[in-house]
Amino acid sequence: MDLLDQAISSSGAAAYVGYASSADPDMRYLTRFQTTDPVIYLKRPGERGLMVVSQMEYARAAAESAFAPVTRAEAGLFTHWTSPSDRWNATAMAIAGLAGGDVLVPASFPISLARSLEAHCRVLVDEDTVRRRRAVKVPAEVDEIRAVQQANEAAMAAAVGLVRAAEVRDGLLVAGDEPLTAERVRAECHRTLLAHGCRAADTIVACGEQAAQPHQRGTGPLEACQPIVIDIFPQDELTGYFADMTRTVVKGEPPGEVLEMFEAARDAKALAVGRIRAGVEGAEVHQAVIELFAERGYPSDATGFTHNLGHGVGLEVHELPTLGPGGGPLETGNVVTVEPGLYLPGVGGVRIEDMGLVTADGFENLTRFPEELRV
Amino acid sequence: MDLLDQAISSSGAAAYVGYASSADPDMRYLTRFQTTDPVIYLKRPGERGLMVVSQMEYARAAAESAFAPVTRAEAGLFTHWTSPSDRWNATAMAIAGLAGGDVLVPASFPISLARSLEAHCRVLVDEDTVRRRRAVKVPAEVDEIRAVQQANEAAMAAAVGLVRAAEVRDGLLVAGDEPLTAERVRAECHRTLLAHGCRAADTIVACGEQAAQPHQRGTGPLEACQPIVIDIFPQDELTGYFADMTRTVVKGEPPGEVLEMFEAARDAKALAVGRIRAGVEGAEVHQAVIELFAERGYPSDATGFTHNLGHGVGLEVHELPTLGPGGGPLETGNVVTVEPGLYLPGVGGVRIEDMGLVTADGFENLTRFPEELRV
Repeated sequence: MDLLDQAISSSGAAAYVGYASSADPDMRYLTRFQTTDPVIYLKRPGERGLMVVSQMEYARAAAESAFAPVTRAEAGLFTHWTSPSDRWNATAMAIAGLAGGDVLVPASFPISLARSLEAHCRVLVDEDTVRRRRAVKVPAEVDEIRAVQQANEAAMAAAVGLVRAAEVRDGLLVAGDEPLTAERVRAECHRTLLAHGCRAADTIVACGEQAAQPHQRGTGPLEACQPIVIDIFPQDELTGYFADMTRTVVKGEPPGEVLEMFEAARDAKALAVGRIRAGVEGAEVHQAVIELFAERGYPSDATGFTHNLGHGVGLEVHELPTLGPGGGPLETGNVVTVEPGLYLPGVGGVRIEDMGLVTADGFENLTRFPEELRV
Repeated sequence: MDLLDQAISSSGAAAYVGYASSADPDMRYLTRFQTTDPVIYLKRPGERGLMVVSQMEYARAAAESAFAPVTRAEAGLFTHWTSPSDRWNATAMAIAGLAGGDVLVPASFPISLARSLEAHCRVLVDEDTVRRRRAVKVPAEVDEIRAVQQANEAAMAAAVGLVRAAEVRDGLLVAGDEPLTAERVRAECHRTLLAHGCRAADTIVACGEQAAQPHQRGTGPLEACQPIVIDIFPQDELTGYFADMTRTVVKGEPPGEVLEMFEAARDAKALAVGRIRAGVEGAEVHQAVIELFAERGYPSDATGFTHNLGHGVGLEVHELPTLGPGGGPLETGNVVTVEPGLYLPGVGGVRIEDMGLVTADGFENLTRFPEELRV
């Protein structure tokens, strides 16, 4: 029996109901329909589920989505919708009519619609069923992620290639007689991704002191002999799946401290990759990395290793499972990152991130890109 | 007094609280901080507001956001968070501590956090204060949108240029000895936008029968003597603002029916643009277009003019106000689209869309791109 059907039945609800656009990854997963405007998704146990769309979206939804759509008019949405303030009540009445009983909703369900629904039925909150189901990929999903990762490696090759080919003048990288900036490298990544049907936002190209902040996007001229953290997480425009990878490179001779940080991160990644398999807890792998870093003299608090070791990747760039404190057992079919990083103000940062598939007996690395520091 | 402060005070709450990532346009507007992971935003009347971020985001938030951030640890989030299932309760307890009384939350607030909060205080739902405030742009926002529209016009010029330069062989467009497809034209738009620091998703390049579905993305070879609807709605990567524009072009001689549809859409746009000014109702302008189309023999239901005349544009591509049924009075500072379209199965579709600023006495068109059908 389907996990969602189980959740509906064990909650005592008549149906599961979502209300979101496809920017919501649960909604995209359930409907496989891309839309800017929110749709209603409604499923009763044993049934296929239905999606309520606007008249304008009907033909496209019928052609593209996982099932036959219903128009808002057919769902009775306009029966009680005569002014904009009727929006939530009219939507709630249509949902209550379709559900025929209490409803189970996701944790992210909008409170205003929930409050309107409460006039008609009980609204039960499902913690994480769809999110947990999304964490376990079927082979077709792994193939989609693999395809995005190929585009990602092409983008990384383009970025690292720019750094590699740069000259050094007065301590700064120069390419084509212009300073090689974080912005130029990011643009080259994005152009490459676009040519592969992917888009990326907020690609990180952070050098030196900027690299000491793990989510700093990076700006301005790149420096020689300083770590440059390049973190690319593209999404396929059509399928919606993500990939995620980070490399750290230095043009010229890295300072001894950076070299030691890089070696510690590389060893931490190897250690983690060796530990991962179905059944192992995400928290345990994270803790093993903390201990390795501690042995090398690095903290894991406000500086040093400041973030989780990894996260699931799928229709969200950060999704379940968690390789960090509280992270539960990994499952066959999880696609996770392993991304040890070290951040020391005044020195800089390093991070190395691979992404792979959790299997019954290990970790199938989906990342092929070499992990060399000096370029 | 600030609109949000007014809403807090008149609700009787002690504070307004949001919980979302910057994918939520209200959150992005309030914090001006870009983040994939949800943050807490909390504001008491007369105070500046605060944002709770993870330790990892702290330095970046301090540098980039509208105010001094607070870490999750400082906010007391980890006091009661010992396992993943504590997430909502721990977050609710931290919020209740910071708010010091009842909270006002946006309509989109996640129900699971609301239910946890209800153990500590009353949770009052604010209908649309931030969304309504976002609909009225300050001059700096209009400048941001204008900049995105310039990128948009460059992308449209590239797209129309490809169609214009194409040859016709056996009724299909050909460029560089390869069929000119919707995919190639879309890729050219996206490359151009990227070079301007913008990204676009789901750009529509829909030809012939595909153009008869207003949200059909379009695929495959483009045909001569058929309408090609090109609808581009890019977002600036840094500012988050959108622009939106549609043109319909034909390579070769358009069928008489398409020419008549195009002329009706062009006249409808001119009529609407002439009607728009602060104080006029969005519903009234929409109705005027329905009437013009009816005079020309076109329906406005399942075919013909099947969608709203227009919508606000800002940090969302579709936001308030509405130029459609139920749309209230327009205000100075609204940025809206005017996009009459006609869709006839078996014939195709046409749509012409400009975007402009509502002023006290009219409509300042932010769109300069010519509206020629034949190219």
